[in-house]
Amino acid sequence: MTSETESQTPPTPDSSPGVTGRPVFGRVTGGPARPEDAALAAELQKTLDGRWARARQTTREAMTPDMLSPLGLTMEEHRAHVLTQLGLLATSGIPELGFREEDGGAGDAGGVLTAFEMLGHLDLSVMVKAGVQWGLFGGAISNLGDAETRARYLPDVISLDLLGCFAMTELGQGSDVQNLETTATFDRETGGFVIDTPTPSAEKAYIGSAARDARVAAVFAQLITPDEAGEPDNHGVHCLLVPIRDEAGNDLPGVTTSDHGLKGGLLGVDNGLIRFDHVRVPHEALLNRFGDVDSDGLYSSSIESDGARFFTMLGTLIRGRVSVGAASGAAARTALALAVRYSLVRRQFDHPETGKGIPLLEYREHQRRLMPRVARSYAYALAQNAIIEELDEFETHPENFDVRRRREMESHAAGIKAAVTGFANDTISEARLACGGAGYMAENRLTTMRADTDVFSTFEGDNVVLMQLVAKELIGAYAAEFGNMDQRETVAFALSTVADVVQEKVRASTLWQKLVDSVTDRENTDLLDRGNQLELLVDREEHLVETVARRLRKAEGEDGAAAFQVFNSAQDHVLRAGRAHMDRWVFEQFAHAIEACEDPAAVEVLDMLCDLFVLDIVDGDKGWFLEHNRLTTERTKAATVALNRLSTKLAGRARTLVDAFAIPEFVFDVPMLTDGGVDAPSEAAQGVGGLE
Amino acid sequence: MTSETESQTPPTPDSSPGVTGRPVFGRVTGGPARPEDAALAAELQKTLDGRWARARQTTREAMTPDMLSPLGLTMEEHRAHVLTQLGLLATSGIPELGFREEDGGAGDAGGVLTAFEMLGHLDLSVMVKAGVQWGLFGGAISNLGDAETRARYLPDVISLDLLGCFAMTELGQGSDVQNLETTATFDRETGGFVIDTPTPSAEKAYIGSAARDARVAAVFAQLITPDEAGEPDNHGVHCLLVPIRDEAGNDLPGVTTSDHGLKGGLLGVDNGLIRFDHVRVPHEALLNRFGDVDSDGLYSSSIESDGARFFTMLGTLIRGRVSVGAASGAAARTALALAVRYSLVRRQFDHPETGKGIPLLEYREHQRRLMPRVARSYAYALAQNAIIEELDEFETHPENFDVRRRREMESHAAGIKAAVTGFANDTISEARLACGGAGYMAENRLTTMRADTDVFSTFEGDNVVLMQLVAKELIGAYAAEFGNMDQRETVAFALSTVADVVQEKVRASTLWQKLVDSVTDRENTDLLDRGNQLELLVDREEHLVETVARRLRKAEGEDGAAAFQVFNSAQDHVLRAGRAHMDRWVFEQFAHAIEACEDPAAVEVLDMLCDLFVLDIVDGDKGWFLEHNRLTTERTKAATVALNRLSTKLAGRARTLVDAFAIPEFVFDVPMLTDGGVDAPSEAAQGVGGLE
Repeated sequence: MTSETESQTPPTPDSSPGVTGRPVFGRVTGGPARPEDAALAAELQKTLDGRWARARQTTREAMTPDMLSPLGLTMEEHRAHVLTQLGLLATSGIPELGFREEDGGAGDAGGVLTAFEMLGHLDLSVMVKAGVQWGLFGGAISNLGDAETRARYLPDVISLDLLGCFAMTELGQGSDVQNLETTATFDRETGGFVIDTPTPSAEKAYIGSAARDARVAAVFAQLITPDEAGEPDNHGVHCLLVPIRDEAGNDLPGVTTSDHGLKGGLLGVDNGLIRFDHVRVPHEALLNRFGDVDSDGLYSSSIESDGARFFTMLGTLIRGRVSVGAASGAAARTALALAVRYSLVRRQFDHPETGKGIPLLEYREHQRRLMPRVARSYAYALAQNAIIEELDEFETHPENFDVRRRREMESHAAGIKAAVTGFANDTISEARLACGGAGYMAENRLTTMRADTDVFSTFEGDNVVLMQLVAKELIGAYAAEFGNMDQRETVAFALSTVADVVQEKVRASTLWQKLVDSVTDRENTDLLDRGNQLELLVDREEHLVETVARRLRKAEGEDGAAAFQVFNSAQDHVLRAGRAHMDRWVFEQFAHAIEACEDPAAVEVLDMLCDLFVLDIVDGDKGWFLEHNRLTTERTKAATVALNRLSTKLAGRARTLVDAFAIPEFVFDVPMLTDGGVDAPSEAAQGVGGLE
Repeated sequence: MTSETESQTPPTPDSSPGVTGRPVFGRVTGGPARPEDAALAAELQKTLDGRWARARQTTREAMTPDMLSPLGLTMEEHRAHVLTQLGLLATSGIPELGFREEDGGAGDAGGVLTAFEMLGHLDLSVMVKAGVQWGLFGGAISNLGDAETRARYLPDVISLDLLGCFAMTELGQGSDVQNLETTATFDRETGGFVIDTPTPSAEKAYIGSAARDARVAAVFAQLITPDEAGEPDNHGVHCLLVPIRDEAGNDLPGVTTSDHGLKGGLLGVDNGLIRFDHVRVPHEALLNRFGDVDSDGLYSSSIESDGARFFTMLGTLIRGRVSVGAASGAAARTALALAVRYSLVRRQFDHPETGKGIPLLEYREHQRRLMPRVARSYAYALAQNAIIEELDEFETHPENFDVRRRREMESHAAGIKAAVTGFANDTISEARLACGGAGYMAENRLTTMRADTDVFSTFEGDNVVLMQLVAKELIGAYAAEFGNMDQRETVAFALSTVADVVQEKVRASTLWQKLVDSVTDRENTDLLDRGNQLELLVDREEHLVETVARRLRKAEGEDGAAAFQVFNSAQDHVLRAGRAHMDRWVFEQFAHAIEACEDPAAVEVLDMLCDLFVLDIVDGDKGWFLEHNRLTTERTKAATVALNRLSTKLAGRARTLVDAFAIPEFVFDVPMLTDGGVDAPSEAAQGVGGLE
């Protein structure tokens, strides 16, 4: 345990989730045996904590065992528990970090994102419910409302006196938000709007807090005004604040909410549906920052193109995506820390020489299951820090961002969300399997984490759609996504811009120059050389982007149907390009973080983790590298050997590596680490022997 | 819907799991639009139903909506519900199929395994609880008890008048059963045995039915008798029947049961722990078929070696493994059928030409996510049928089985369990993701299936350990696993037997000759040629087995520690050999089934599915095929193109392919297939357009 976490309140006996009547035989109180390991963990933690280390530490110290996801509650009890937790959060000072000072906030986007990320160690229901209230609902008002609306609502939103929800998704439209069906029609008589659900598929669905707690909904709807001839004129999707429940919790007239009931996880979040039957709201309900309607029903906007306006308004979602990626990354680190600790104290089969049981982590396969994932979790944590820094700068100094940098940030927010949430599902599943039967017992937390993170791959943008967005940005089509180009124009546009965009961007960076200069032996290039690794990842990305652009060229001059066919038959290629881009970008953030680390021992370990991250990419995609003559068979084989060796080597330091995650010690007070199936602490302290 | 399922009772309105207050807008009543599709589905179903088609049909007709995994119950309510279902099963005539006629059964192992498999479509808690009662507990008595014991217990076991559990696993020993710690010590004074839990890690753990319902436990324990000097002599693991609860459900003296409480799934199964404090049982408690103790405490056995005896007694587990693989395969097929149906009626983004939403399955990526998994589910279903046939023959005609054939059967039972349960977890997860937000709502069943099957990778043998077993059998070390060889001897033994075992076995088969003869163009070999496919898979397996044996040779003459190091550093290689073997064996079962199919239209489709199965293997392991110069880069690239094309082609018939699974129609009466987010039936009947 690092010095930072030592100051925490020790877990109280009654916080133990042990089953009644079941003995507890000792306790892995943890902490590496040697002082130098603790020092190393502390240095690694510094790198992982990043710029918002102080916010992390404050949050860490405020964490208590009763914030852990509770077991054995009914759904309604769990919902009530989560609402109570939200009330405590409201008084913690954290939510106001996310709002501007002029709105009663503290203007610290990085701080609030960091704090919410850390809820991923404890209870993802609380994280999601908090994200709905302050990130999405509060964020919509903050980003899209005028000064008057912000002043009217935000203090109550921050203090939790007003609970809200974010009503975007509909039963029929999940990913295609631009085509959602709910309408907000200007009513000339009252000067207000009429909110309506015109078809069954237009019902708002999967909305967090809609089933029980929300009193007001931020409703996304097609904004319709009468044109000069009195015909409806659609200005695209806008957001309006619509009261849905009275103080007693009853649906308001014209509003019908219902409850999704049980879900695969996140049982503490009350997801529900909302239907509107010609619900009237006053004129000021429209969040009018980017589009307004005057009392005569005349529409005006500072942004001319419907697409561009939509795209700007969706800015609200970016923080949500960053937050979801961050919290699922935290959950994955928690799962890995649990599995690593278990693998050091759980023994199976006796060693032929000593006759003593062999700790699980001494097995090659167990090392292969856990250590590359530990390396990836470092990579993603550091990339997540980078995107939080970027978003924080954007929110405080938007003037530093031209269109291109802004799009790049948005693309990376989407890509890292898709990459990390997918990684979290995979990793928590593997951690659960790696803990055998114990991993399946809910008391050991892994199954709840797996169930809760599962939907992170779907909400705040489906991962497939997001990764496609990343790739489209790369091939220059991102502009068209929210512009008014049709598919054909998109393709034409793509052709003119692809080529060397990647090279140009990456190679302009000083890190690139530094790393490439460091390559000593170009003929006999080494996969453990940082510069070669970068070249390898950049080259793969370039090739994929260039070849996919060439395929899309076939659509030139074709009609819509044929152009769609061309796009669709290249979809797997497009997604591959997006993933390759994210691999390269994540790698760069890892390399930057190593550059910034000043502790030689920590740098040595981070270097190994970064190597393992790259080797895992190479091993996982070796078919591609061989097919495209990027690596010889000798080198791919060498990569696999190196992957195994490095996994073994880092397994010898596994406990230190997961201690650096600085997860509160009470999280590990689970039966599988304390009962009779595992070593007593004295033995555990010896760790894994026989490793390189 | 195939003709077989049309005769079923239509779902009654009150079986609809729709949330109260939520409208239901129509219903995908399903069934392919064209009569020829229904005919094709029926022919495919014949192949999938296999030899026990009649048992399947009987079970299918007996299935009702109230057998579906219930939603929204508390754990205790769910347990009670499952026990009620077990009571209904007890009167269905199915459980007796699993027992010999002389024991009051009907002697139809294939029939009972098939019926239990089909519970995987409905509720895995019921399947597991039934497996514990009749498969494991009943199976232990049936296989290990003498005539008197069988007559005394089995009628009540079959009728469910006596509920039991199978107490093998301990907190400290999961995979290493041979070294479990519970003791059964002969007591000269009474002539009985004393059952004891000597250490905390010896507590029986994760035992199904131990928390609540079981009154008797089949306890696996080290059997100890006094030797001539009065010192304890350990004869290895034996099984004894130990009463644990009285009629009122209270623990008997010396027995302490406790409850694991909530798990990641299977909430209807009451898993618990059992501790024994010097519990006395009479002499007849010992299931003495393979090892007995006389009234003087003298041990005798028809099998001399402790290892061989242990191995024989573990025969009980084989049926369990086959059953677990089969049921998780059924769950995977259910998940795929749900996801395929959803992908045909759920639309996202508008087609640029028609302006109409595009069904999910029209997207390349969606085809890639679902169709190779549909092909694999056919492969595994057919392989599962083959192993059931083999096991049924073994149980009815053991004389047909020499040691080698028996070991092969056991190895394949282990391997198919590992392969299919891993596949099921992956596939149900992917199916859930492919259904977006709807997939996460418990009412649509996917999340419960995912949570329930998760532990199938762990119980009845951890998948890693089982796949290792498969590989060890291949390299001739299987004998040593349960014999008395130490690690060094195992290695030496391995060296003498490996080499051409694979070739020899496969190439002796008539199918091999037939397929290889069919290869027309050896120079320009085609990946869609069945003979080439077999050569490719056999060759990979041979190479992996040979090279891993060569690596293990390094251990020759080394001491135990060094030998372990050699083994351990080759563990990933060993597992890869096991997986390659199972791929080849599953492929062969697929090819056999196609050979046996007489309907030309069905053969055409099965051929495509088999091709897709092989292409998926090649694409997933192309790095290996390239590294080892088995395929050129041109051919691996061609394999990927063919994989895409075939996925698209089969997507056009996806509904028929999943209809052939012949899952009762009421399983698809879920909100996501009936509510406003998806097409009305009239539109859905048109299916996916624009596919090749």
